[in-house]
Amino acid sequence: MTEIVAPPHPFDAALTLTSGEPLKGRTQPEYANMVGPFGGMTAATLVRVIEQHPDRLGNPLALTVNYAGPIADGEFEITSRILRTNQHWQLELVQDGTVTTSATAVFGTRRDTWADTELTMPAAPDPEDLPAQGLPDFIAWARNYDMRFVEGAIPGQDSGECPESTSTVWVRDTPARPLDFPSLTAMTDVFYPRVFLRRGRYMAAGTVSLTVYFHATAEQLDAVGADHVLGTARAHRFTRGYFDQAAQLWSRDGSLLATSHQLVYFKD
Amino acid sequence: MTEIVAPPHPFDAALTLTSGEPLKGRTQPEYANMVGPFGGMTAATLVRVIEQHPDRLGNPLALTVNYAGPIADGEFEITSRILRTNQHWQLELVQDGTVTTSATAVFGTRRDTWADTELTMPAAPDPEDLPAQGLPDFIAWARNYDMRFVEGAIPGQDSGECPESTSTVWVRDTPARPLDFPSLTAMTDVFYPRVFLRRGRYMAAGTVSLTVYFHATAEQLDAVGADHVLGTARAHRFTRGYFDQAAQLWSRDGSLLATSHQLVYFKD
Repeated sequence: MTEIVAPPHPFDAALTLTSGEPLKGRTQPEYANMVGPFGGMTAATLVRVIEQHPDRLGNPLALTVNYAGPIADGEFEITSRILRTNQHWQLELVQDGTVTTSATAVFGTRRDTWADTELTMPAAPDPEDLPAQGLPDFIAWARNYDMRFVEGAIPGQDSGECPESTSTVWVRDTPARPLDFPSLTAMTDVFYPRVFLRRGRYMAAGTVSLTVYFHATAEQLDAVGADHVLGTARAHRFTRGYFDQAAQLWSRDGSLLATSHQLVYFKD
Repeated sequence: MTEIVAPPHPFDAALTLTSGEPLKGRTQPEYANMVGPFGGMTAATLVRVIEQHPDRLGNPLALTVNYAGPIADGEFEITSRILRTNQHWQLELVQDGTVTTSATAVFGTRRDTWADTELTMPAAPDPEDLPAQGLPDFIAWARNYDMRFVEGAIPGQDSGECPESTSTVWVRDTPARPLDFPSLTAMTDVFYPRVFLRRGRYMAAGTVSLTVYFHATAEQLDAVGADHVLGTARAHRFTRGYFDQAAQLWSRDGSLLATSHQLVYFKD
C-alpha cells in the first residue's frame, strides 16, 4: 500500500512553528511581499502562537500588530508573555536580537447577550458572477488568494486618479482552506495600499500598525468553511506621509466577521 | 509682593509623573470613573510618558492601550521600553506587581506629501448654539469636559431603545485648556458606551482595547487651542458580550485630528 500524504496548505506551512522557547518559524517564499513577508501572514502567525499556547483562554477578541522594521527572509523567533489572566498577551517577533514586530492580543470566552449588527454589508454580485482578478503576479502572497473585485481593483497603467479609496472584494484562500482565526486575521490585510487607488499608481507604502477586532465565534468561522468572504476597505485621511485604513470582512450570509484598522506610511 | 501661583489644570495634575525609573503617578479623584480612573486619562498618561522621554522621536502616530484589569485609586508605576529606533514603544502600567494596562505606541516625524481627507465632517450647529449637556454628575471625569450633544445624548429614564448608536458631541476641557496630544487622546474616549444608547439604559460595560491614529501635527493642535472639538462615535456590531466603537475627532474648521477604535465588553 502506498500512503499518499498531501503536502500542507501553503498557509499552514507558513504558520508552522517549532516547539521550544522561543518558538521558531520561517518565512515562506509563497507569502513574500515586495519587502519581507506579507504582513497579514505575520499577524496570522502571532495569533497561531497564542492559539497553540496551553494556557490561552478562549478565542481572539482584539489584536494589534506593530510593524517596527522589515523581516528578512528566513528564520525568526517569537516570544509571548501573558500579561494578565491568560487573556492579555504580548508578543515579539525577533531576528538576530532585533525586534521586527511587536503585538498585543486579547483573548477571551464569549457569552450570549443582546446582539445587533448596525453596519450594512456592501451590495455585491455573487463571487461566481465576477471574474477572478487579483493583484499583479509579482506580488507573491496574493497568488494564494482567489480575489474577485466588486469595486476598486488595483490600478493599471492608465487608471488615473480615483476620488474614493474604497475597494470591495470577494476573497478566499487558494487552494481553498476552511476559515479559521489566523486566516481571517490575514484577510484583514489583503487590501493593497489605498493611496495606490487614489493616485492611480504604485509607490512605497507599508503598514505601521494593524488592529483587528474579532466579532465571529469559532462556530461562525466553521459555518463559512472555505467560502469566499466579502472584504471592503477605505481610508479616512491621507496626510503628511500616513493614511488610515478601515476594513470589514463579511460572510456571504451577512455576518460581520471582523473589523480592522491600520495606519500606513507612504512616500509619494 | 504676593506671588499668586495658579494650581495646575486638573488634567495636568492627573498627568504628573515623578521622575525616576519606574515613573510613578497617582490617580486623581477628578478623573475617577465608575470603577477606577477614566480610561482616556490613562491613555493620555501613557502618551505623556513617551512625550517626556529624552529619546523619543517625533510625535504620536498610533497608540493601542489594553485595559487588562481595574486600576485601584492611588499610586501606579509606568515602565516604558523602546522596541526599535526610538519610534516603537511598549508600556505597562503596574500596581502591586500586577499589570493593569499595557500599551504600544508608534511615534515619528512627518513630512509633506499629497494629502486629502475623504471622510465628511458631520453637520452640526456651532457649540455656542447648543446647550451644555454632559454626562450625569456622578461620573466624575465627565465634569472636566464641556459637552454639547448634537445627537445621541446619554439616555434618560424614559429614553427607550434607539435604532442607531451614533453620538455626535462638541467637547473641550473645562476649565479650558489648549489641546495637545494627551488631551486629544483622552477625548477619543469621552463617548459613553454605545450599548447604553441602543438599549436605552445603563449596564456594566468597559473598554478592553483602544486604538488611536493621530492625523494632526502639533501645529494643527496649537491652531485649535482651547476651542471645542467635534467628536462622533458609533458601533458596527454588538455580539456575545462585546461591541466595537469607531470614533473621529474634528476641529471646528474641518480638520480630522484623530480616528479611534475600541472594543468594549458589556453585560446585559
